[in-house]
Amino acid sequence: MDDAVSIRYLQASWVVVCDKEFKIIKDGFVVFDKDISYVGDSSTIKKQYPNTKFEHQGNNSVLMPGLINAHTHLEFGANSTTLVYGDFTAWLHSVLSNRDKLLSKVDDKLIKNQLNDMLKSGTTSVGAISSYSLDIDSLDNSCLNTVCFVEVLGSTKEKVNENFQNFQDRLKAILEKSNIIPAVAIHSAYATHPKLVKKVIKVAKKKALIVQTHFMESCAEKNWLKNSDGSFKKIFEEVFKQTKAISKAKKFLNMFKTINNMSYTHCCFASKKHLNILQKQNANIIHCAKSNRLLGSETFNTNSFENIAIGTDGLSSNDSLDMFDELKTVLFLHRKEPINMFSNKLLYMATHGGARSLNLNSGELSKNFQADILSLTLKDEPTKENLCLSIILNKKSINQVYIKGKLCYG
Amino acid sequence: MDDAVSIRYLQASWVVVCDKEFKIIKDGFVVFDKDISYVGDSSTIKKQYPNTKFEHQGNNSVLMPGLINAHTHLEFGANSTTLVYGDFTAWLHSVLSNRDKLLSKVDDKLIKNQLNDMLKSGTTSVGAISSYSLDIDSLDNSCLNTVCFVEVLGSTKEKVNENFQNFQDRLKAILEKSNIIPAVAIHSAYATHPKLVKKVIKVAKKKALIVQTHFMESCAEKNWLKNSDGSFKKIFEEVFKQTKAISKAKKFLNMFKTINNMSYTHCCFASKKHLNILQKQNANIIHCAKSNRLLGSETFNTNSFENIAIGTDGLSSNDSLDMFDELKTVLFLHRKEPINMFSNKLLYMATHGGARSLNLNSGELSKNFQADILSLTLKDEPTKENLCLSIILNKKSINQVYIKGKLCYG
Repeated sequence: MDDAVSIRYLQASWVVVCDKEFKIIKDGFVVFDKDISYVGDSSTIKKQYPNTKFEHQGNNSVLMPGLINAHTHLEFGANSTTLVYGDFTAWLHSVLSNRDKLLSKVDDKLIKNQLNDMLKSGTTSVGAISSYSLDIDSLDNSCLNTVCFVEVLGSTKEKVNENFQNFQDRLKAILEKSNIIPAVAIHSAYATHPKLVKKVIKVAKKKALIVQTHFMESCAEKNWLKNSDGSFKKIFEEVFKQTKAISKAKKFLNMFKTINNMSYTHCCFASKKHLNILQKQNANIIHCAKSNRLLGSETFNTNSFENIAIGTDGLSSNDSLDMFDELKTVLFLHRKEPINMFSNKLLYMATHGGARSLNLNSGELSKNFQADILSLTLKDEPTKENLCLSIILNKKSINQVYIKGKLCYG
Repeated sequence: MDDAVSIRYLQASWVVVCDKEFKIIKDGFVVFDKDISYVGDSSTIKKQYPNTKFEHQGNNSVLMPGLINAHTHLEFGANSTTLVYGDFTAWLHSVLSNRDKLLSKVDDKLIKNQLNDMLKSGTTSVGAISSYSLDIDSLDNSCLNTVCFVEVLGSTKEKVNENFQNFQDRLKAILEKSNIIPAVAIHSAYATHPKLVKKVIKVAKKKALIVQTHFMESCAEKNWLKNSDGSFKKIFEEVFKQTKAISKAKKFLNMFKTINNMSYTHCCFASKKHLNILQKQNANIIHCAKSNRLLGSETFNTNSFENIAIGTDGLSSNDSLDMFDELKTVLFLHRKEPINMFSNKLLYMATHGGARSLNLNSGELSKNFQADILSLTLKDEPTKENLCLSIILNKKSINQVYIKGKLCYG
């Protein structure tokens, strides 16, 4: 994937930079090979590139960073009607009952198709939670930037060493892949024993790997962690032979305070105190809004935290991995947010926010950033105010997708 | 359109009847020509049709009534990025400024394309609000069941007679079309003078036409009708030279009490008292949820009223006229509703509810109903519980669309 790519000079009606100031350039120019070397407007371009012919992307064209899907589970891609939606505990039950059936349908083709669908719909980077290492060959062969989170799971104290060994073996296999960025996922406070968490964090720190965990996804999780009660009680007693939660929320969170790049997925039922801890850790929250609605959870308040990324979650709790579909639905889910400003914020979270969460030098069209770029065409002329809303809302054609400067689609 | 159609014998994995009991038949059978003559399950079919071969629609196939889009404005189909979203008054301003530009782009092709897109996405009946009669030829030539609401608009007392004459001329033209069901739309309490409303209601009653009106779509409308104040004040003073609302809400509603089939679109800001009046009128409310969110309104509470239909509204306030897209988004917008039950309700509103609102003998797969039928295939096997959710959520293929028993798509 380190093939040399030729330099490109693109011009478009609009460039959405997705930097901290959320700059939007009307009639903008982008120069890149593997990385971006120049982004600017017509006032400076002639001075900088007096004799260069730029490829104009056409009327109502837009250049923007590729979308970053910060959290998904490709290994559950076989689900469509099997799992029970509407209530997290009922869903968890159905996962436990149908897991083997769903996993038996996983092959390279299924993983590859999901990655291709993502690419075609404008996603250039993905954070894939790998629970069984069934996805690693496809992730390694993909043209997307693939961050593979080796997931560690197991609430039984007696199996800590066994689960840790399994994690290490799987991590080793990932580290040998040249085209995957290795990372660590600790399933959750309720399903990963604290001793196991500690061991894995030690590895993550030593190898400077980024870490994700699911946190406060459901009301059931909140009640279980707080009072060892609620709808998790029965499932834990019957299936896992546990009568008490293995961690308290605060203790669990504090285990991650030394991790450099930490992301918490969901946080629908996180309290203000929890969010304060996350903020102190300079952590990211990954918002999987469609998944949360389908599993009967609250919708995370995107005004309550600073660094937010967007994830589709897996097809185990979503009908699509299309990030534009996700963004459009989020726009309607957060129905009281001011529509134009929130659209800008959504694109920022899905690019800049995702890059921060996955620790990628991407998600922004600025000099020295990796050239992960979408070229789109809108149906009609937008204003600067409704540009991002128009990008999210209207059926747009994605003409080209560049990853590390290479034309991967279009 | 009264061509004889041959009799069809269809069998499917599931039949969603959309009757009042919301019956779902596993392994069901439907027999129809122009109308439906039989709907049943495998326990009775051999007795009824001992020697008939039924066409099985395949694995995970579904037969259900065609969707009914109870409220749209095809004449605004040229909008995509032009109109201002996020606030109703700002949107209204942008409509007034851009109306001529948008209408100048309307031709038969634009209307026809919208109707075709609707057909392909499973809509078999449409309630089209016709403000300028630019859509009537295409409506007349469409294979959909087209109810054309001749809209009357005008808040100036001096122009009541002129506006009434214009309405009568346009209604006359519709009445001459053999393939359109004529109906009446009174724009709203704020934009149609009460004297004009009275005259038009008289015509509607005499000709037994059904009536629609926009009601309490925005907070601005509520404030204007109640106190002649709020963000409408400026627009009414400047554009229409009016300092006071021409109607009060209650008075306006009571004008419709003698109408047999009355539908109120939106009702986002209707009070309990208003809803009681509507309930006494045995009226329908048409829920246009995506439109309401895009124009910054509240979301109508679907638990607060009995007879609800679904409309996409026009492309002036929606990105799509696809009813399945509408239903899916509504599922996320009403994020606290229990997901499976609400999915059933959504399909009921989009079929049975729409038929009631448009006064069609359609929207239900029962004996003697018009044969407006969709044949779909789901990706995987659903349960009875999640069947409707799966229909709404998963990208499904619509294989066939029958209207009055005629295969119109597929």
